[in-house]
Amino acid sequence: MAIRYELIKECKQTGARLGRLHTPHGIIETPIFMPVGTQATVKAMTPEELKDMQAQIILSNTYHLYLRPGHELVKEAGGLHKFMNWDRPILTDSGGFQVFSLGDLRKITEEGVEFQSHIDGSKHFLSPEKVMEIENALGADIIMAFDECAPYPADKAYVKNSLERTTRWAVRCKEAHKNTENQALFGIVQGGMYQDLREQSARELVALDFPGYSIGGLSVGEPKELMYEVLDYTTPLLPKDKPRYLMGVGSPDALIEGAIRGVDMFDCVLPTRIARNGTAMTSIGKVVIKNAKYTRDFTPLDPNCDCYCCKNYTRAYLRHLYKADEILSSRLMSTHNLHFLINLMKQVREAIMNDRLLDFRNEFFANYYGETQL
Amino acid sequence: MAIRYELIKECKQTGARLGRLHTPHGIIETPIFMPVGTQATVKAMTPEELKDMQAQIILSNTYHLYLRPGHELVKEAGGLHKFMNWDRPILTDSGGFQVFSLGDLRKITEEGVEFQSHIDGSKHFLSPEKVMEIENALGADIIMAFDECAPYPADKAYVKNSLERTTRWAVRCKEAHKNTENQALFGIVQGGMYQDLREQSARELVALDFPGYSIGGLSVGEPKELMYEVLDYTTPLLPKDKPRYLMGVGSPDALIEGAIRGVDMFDCVLPTRIARNGTAMTSIGKVVIKNAKYTRDFTPLDPNCDCYCCKNYTRAYLRHLYKADEILSSRLMSTHNLHFLINLMKQVREAIMNDRLLDFRNEFFANYYGETQL
Repeated sequence: MAIRYELIKECKQTGARLGRLHTPHGIIETPIFMPVGTQATVKAMTPEELKDMQAQIILSNTYHLYLRPGHELVKEAGGLHKFMNWDRPILTDSGGFQVFSLGDLRKITEEGVEFQSHIDGSKHFLSPEKVMEIENALGADIIMAFDECAPYPADKAYVKNSLERTTRWAVRCKEAHKNTENQALFGIVQGGMYQDLREQSARELVALDFPGYSIGGLSVGEPKELMYEVLDYTTPLLPKDKPRYLMGVGSPDALIEGAIRGVDMFDCVLPTRIARNGTAMTSIGKVVIKNAKYTRDFTPLDPNCDCYCCKNYTRAYLRHLYKADEILSSRLMSTHNLHFLINLMKQVREAIMNDRLLDFRNEFFANYYGETQL
Repeated sequence: MAIRYELIKECKQTGARLGRLHTPHGIIETPIFMPVGTQATVKAMTPEELKDMQAQIILSNTYHLYLRPGHELVKEAGGLHKFMNWDRPILTDSGGFQVFSLGDLRKITEEGVEFQSHIDGSKHFLSPEKVMEIENALGADIIMAFDECAPYPADKAYVKNSLERTTRWAVRCKEAHKNTENQALFGIVQGGMYQDLREQSARELVALDFPGYSIGGLSVGEPKELMYEVLDYTTPLLPKDKPRYLMGVGSPDALIEGAIRGVDMFDCVLPTRIARNGTAMTSIGKVVIKNAKYTRDFTPLDPNCDCYCCKNYTRAYLRHLYKADEILSSRLMSTHNLHFLINLMKQVREAIMNDRLLDFRNEFFANYYGETQL
């Protein structure tokens, strides 16, 4: 068995749970935020810096690594951990979300998805079997089944068809997965915003007995309240002794609300992407560093933060770096944003331990005004 | 007195010297290579990383900082050291080279230079007095007088006129310099590729008794052999008890040849600029990382290097990062190239100490084939 989920404690105020996920590359404390390293690097960061900020697991993208540098090259390099110099756990997605996002550049059949590379237009075909071959070659601790992610909005018939195909593909992935000893394959619950379809998807996947379950098809454009509603009825459908991973969610409010609803794992490019665009998540809300009001602001980016960026640099300097298009701008802002979300989840875990997650949420948002648009 | 040069040893094989430069922010061992932090950041690097690779002093550019974020803002921030979080020595140039490089966008008179900003086209005027005001506000340990750098090639009358103006401006800089206690003002020897003009310039500036002397107007397009020839007759004109700084030179061969001719300090954007373009300086010559031959090369960038990049990553990974346009590519390649030049100068100092600099040069170039085009 590649992973084992240990349930430490259930929150008395909410559906949140404190756990430990044992993996071949170490133990992950949950709930957790996972930084995204799409192309075998968390953008602008070194592995050592991620460890300094106590990142416990990172995510990498199968679609991107398959196209460049290629999964066979990564395998030759000794696997993704060795290739990118990261010895802690890694999770790879299945590429499903990326290929479906290609729109006109892809064609879905029961067999799989034909698509054109976003890099050079070359033609490719991903099937459940091919995706398992790729993820096995990459060698992440946790891997995702190839799923079909329905768009939002989508009519019920479309979503039903798509979730049922996801179940059939999950069966094929399970059969094709070659390295069950070292890599845990998660099934992905789909079903859009329809309660009965989420129930159907969860029931079908749980019957297949995966070592963990992802919740897909959320954070695809729907209002956040709707996402929370879907979580409200979806997480209770999943077994308590398995980890639950909400894919592609990374705004501070959604992390807290997701944890409250029993989610254990989150990932998102948001903190690093907005960092490169000069936007910080701080304890007092969003800071857009290019704004003129920071020109002579010689205080830290976040007055309540002890990250490397906040301990050593001022908003005035960060604004200068951003305006001057310096790489150090992306580095420092990414450092802060990742630290912020990792630290937020640490606080969430402490709040669960002390049965005060709802109180923590209220305290957090009392300061964090105006951030919900992130 | 802001600085003091301590001559430790003269090489028995060459004109090289081993020294220590005492500054308000610490001691610099010479000969030394100074990484360039044009816009108050050495591109892609943090101060801690520069310290890890034993950078002892960095250079920053007056022209750039004057335009953005402005010297007054830097002064308000507590000076350049504090603004950029670097507590070791800093040297600022005078902006002379930059404004003269603007070509049609600048107009030179005896009073100073009128020019248009490369950022927004706004009009500005730099004079010796204004440059001193800016450099005093920035607060570097070593500052440069405002000089006129003649182009190459240039006829003798033009170069003579330009060096004589440089001397007159040096006098004005000396008079305008307000912080002699903490900032050492260097005069800049000009005179192009004419021996008698270099002699005139050196004689005039040495008479003004500066705490150090720069050699300007080299590495401006002339053949390297010509540069070495100019150094051959210029450094002996400078006092032995003062540091000598060869401006804008940073290729490995020119560092060694410059040290052999008695130069103590060097700076250049070369190592960081070519790093961002995917080119490394290594002990076995130039490595252009995007080349297909490195696709499956799982060896370090430089087999004889112990920098962070070479200890932890392969050429295959570095090539992937470069092709994928990842920031970590610029970071790792810059780390290696800066470490390479800093370490090269450490080896040069050891060779001087052991009276074997010529032997070291020959050993170095036996491996470093094909790099002289850098």
